[in-house]
Amino acid sequence: MAAEGRVVEHPKKAFGWAARDPSGVLSPFNFSRRETGEKDVAFKVLYCGICHSDLHMAKNEWGTSIYPLVPGHELVGVVTEVGSKVEKFKVGDNVGVGYMIDSCRSCQNCDDDLENYCPKYTTTCGGKYRDGTVTYGGYSDSMVADEHFVVLIPDSLSLDIAGPLLCAGITVYSPLKYYGLDKPGLRIGIVGLGGLGHMAVKFAKAFGANVTVISTSPNKENEAIEHLGADSFLISRDPNQLMAAMGTLDGIIDTVSAGHPILPLIGLLKSHGKLVMLGVIVKPVDLPVYALLGGRKLLGGSMIGGIKETQEMIDFAAKHYVKPDIEVVPIDYVNTAMERLAKGDVRYRFVIDIGNTLKPSS
Amino acid sequence: MAAEGRVVEHPKKAFGWAARDPSGVLSPFNFSRRETGEKDVAFKVLYCGICHSDLHMAKNEWGTSIYPLVPGHELVGVVTEVGSKVEKFKVGDNVGVGYMIDSCRSCQNCDDDLENYCPKYTTTCGGKYRDGTVTYGGYSDSMVADEHFVVLIPDSLSLDIAGPLLCAGITVYSPLKYYGLDKPGLRIGIVGLGGLGHMAVKFAKAFGANVTVISTSPNKENEAIEHLGADSFLISRDPNQLMAAMGTLDGIIDTVSAGHPILPLIGLLKSHGKLVMLGVIVKPVDLPVYALLGGRKLLGGSMIGGIKETQEMIDFAAKHYVKPDIEVVPIDYVNTAMERLAKGDVRYRFVIDIGNTLKPSS
Repeated sequence: MAAEGRVVEHPKKAFGWAARDPSGVLSPFNFSRRETGEKDVAFKVLYCGICHSDLHMAKNEWGTSIYPLVPGHELVGVVTEVGSKVEKFKVGDNVGVGYMIDSCRSCQNCDDDLENYCPKYTTTCGGKYRDGTVTYGGYSDSMVADEHFVVLIPDSLSLDIAGPLLCAGITVYSPLKYYGLDKPGLRIGIVGLGGLGHMAVKFAKAFGANVTVISTSPNKENEAIEHLGADSFLISRDPNQLMAAMGTLDGIIDTVSAGHPILPLIGLLKSHGKLVMLGVIVKPVDLPVYALLGGRKLLGGSMIGGIKETQEMIDFAAKHYVKPDIEVVPIDYVNTAMERLAKGDVRYRFVIDIGNTLKPSS
Repeated sequence: MAAEGRVVEHPKKAFGWAARDPSGVLSPFNFSRRETGEKDVAFKVLYCGICHSDLHMAKNEWGTSIYPLVPGHELVGVVTEVGSKVEKFKVGDNVGVGYMIDSCRSCQNCDDDLENYCPKYTTTCGGKYRDGTVTYGGYSDSMVADEHFVVLIPDSLSLDIAGPLLCAGITVYSPLKYYGLDKPGLRIGIVGLGGLGHMAVKFAKAFGANVTVISTSPNKENEAIEHLGADSFLISRDPNQLMAAMGTLDGIIDTVSAGHPILPLIGLLKSHGKLVMLGVIVKPVDLPVYALLGGRKLLGGSMIGGIKETQEMIDFAAKHYVKPDIEVVPIDYVNTAMERLAKGDVRYRFVIDIGNTLKPSS
């Protein structure tokens, strides 16, 4: 069953594409955005990435979707208006908003710049503001948000590739930092080459790691090494390759959401190695606890990142030329893009060219 | 099938009790120890703790036992002879040896004072020295070991209680330190009140934590709080108690070796909380990966501790009066003690009074 939310008619008109029911099919949708408050930044959306969770939400696969649902939490654009008390932004700045658009601002996690772990954070699309009204995401022409949840996109980073950094990028950057896997010379494994995995390869390389891509698909070897710059490639279903690589990795970033065996991954770790799981695997996996003891290994989770760290990640990406691989599509291709995404047919992120293709007449 | 080892007749006579077959029944046994080498410390054994793994090994439950098997890796006594190049010990010092009596001394873990994670460490009993000869443990009148693997027992620590610190003590102390759970004011859960669990309560309290004992047995509440000094008690099978305590703990030390649900334990952790598993759980447990993501929680293993840290732990225990609860027994009670240990009938560690009860005539 889909959830319900309060809808309020604001004076500022907005336009986007929305899913209306669990078919997930998107179509043009007129709505409104709140006036720019004194701490708010309003911006014209130019690009928005398509994250896999947009697909889940459009189809109400988590059972929490509120229709009409305007997806999109990898949105970037140019500031059009700032509130009287805004300190960090000015009209004309390139900015973006990621997965969260609000949080309680008073819990320990919020105090620690970890709004992503605030139990009351508000998602940028399909969530509810504190007043109960629905949040509409970035498949739309405009956005307004408290400046705390807005990040500055450096001029050296082109806007089309900036969007996916705000979700896929920070989701892999944050655990590499938190689990100490950002030191030069470490040997890092990346499981899964999708939107997250390809960013994990690039950030790990930028940190100076020796990177092994671990995949079930032998045909991804060339892509991983020649195109993404990984140092080696390991087929996770090949027992001989696994045996040869046992105990060689300092850490593994596992981006796969489907259930899969984790004992071989634990085996690939050196003593004190860390296996970080990022995929929302719904069914419990078999954990051989004894495999963690003899080498003091650990298995940890992580989810997106805080706003301060997102800004740090964006600045790092700009400085070190860490760029997602994208396929830019017009808004009227969005339903096809969603279908292709469901089949994994994208290298590696669709980005909607909102600025040039989203027109009220479309 | 039991394993085989080389037996060499040394000039120094020794005497202990050994298991001869997988019945695990111990009986008097004459053997020999090597001459005191230039880096060796020889000592008269006065006390030896009975660890649960002594029971596993006596009965060949891990399939690696070498008979005759002299158990015991929590042995303490008084130095009787030191080699010409020994620097840290002198005749008359109180000393002890724990789980390991040698390691490769050249790998990264050995370089980092983490001999317990050296892939080639030698166990104090039922293992093999580098020359292939069998190691005989502390249920015996004497020991000789390289000084690197010997720890000094401070005079303020009585010898009867020192033994169990060398295995049970360091096994809980090391993960409390490594996982950052040694800071004053943290809220720490301890699962299981046995040889390890009761030491974990005491070390966590000594570090200044607020300690919750988590148990399936309601009748352990009084013991946990009144006797061991825990701050609170939680029955892990009571859904109401679990619900009330969700998200309240910074870390959990889980000492249980039998399979048990870990989702409730993960639920008890705050964001960024750590669940440390110490029990050798043979069958894989169900791990709900998603439960780790939203709060960036982790699940880690640990196994005993390095020699340097064992010395640090012993010194800490002496300074902060951290003492295992023991039941001292004569050597001819050892088979009964083993039977009681198998049933969990001990509070919390048997210690054999070797010095007063082990006689060549017994």
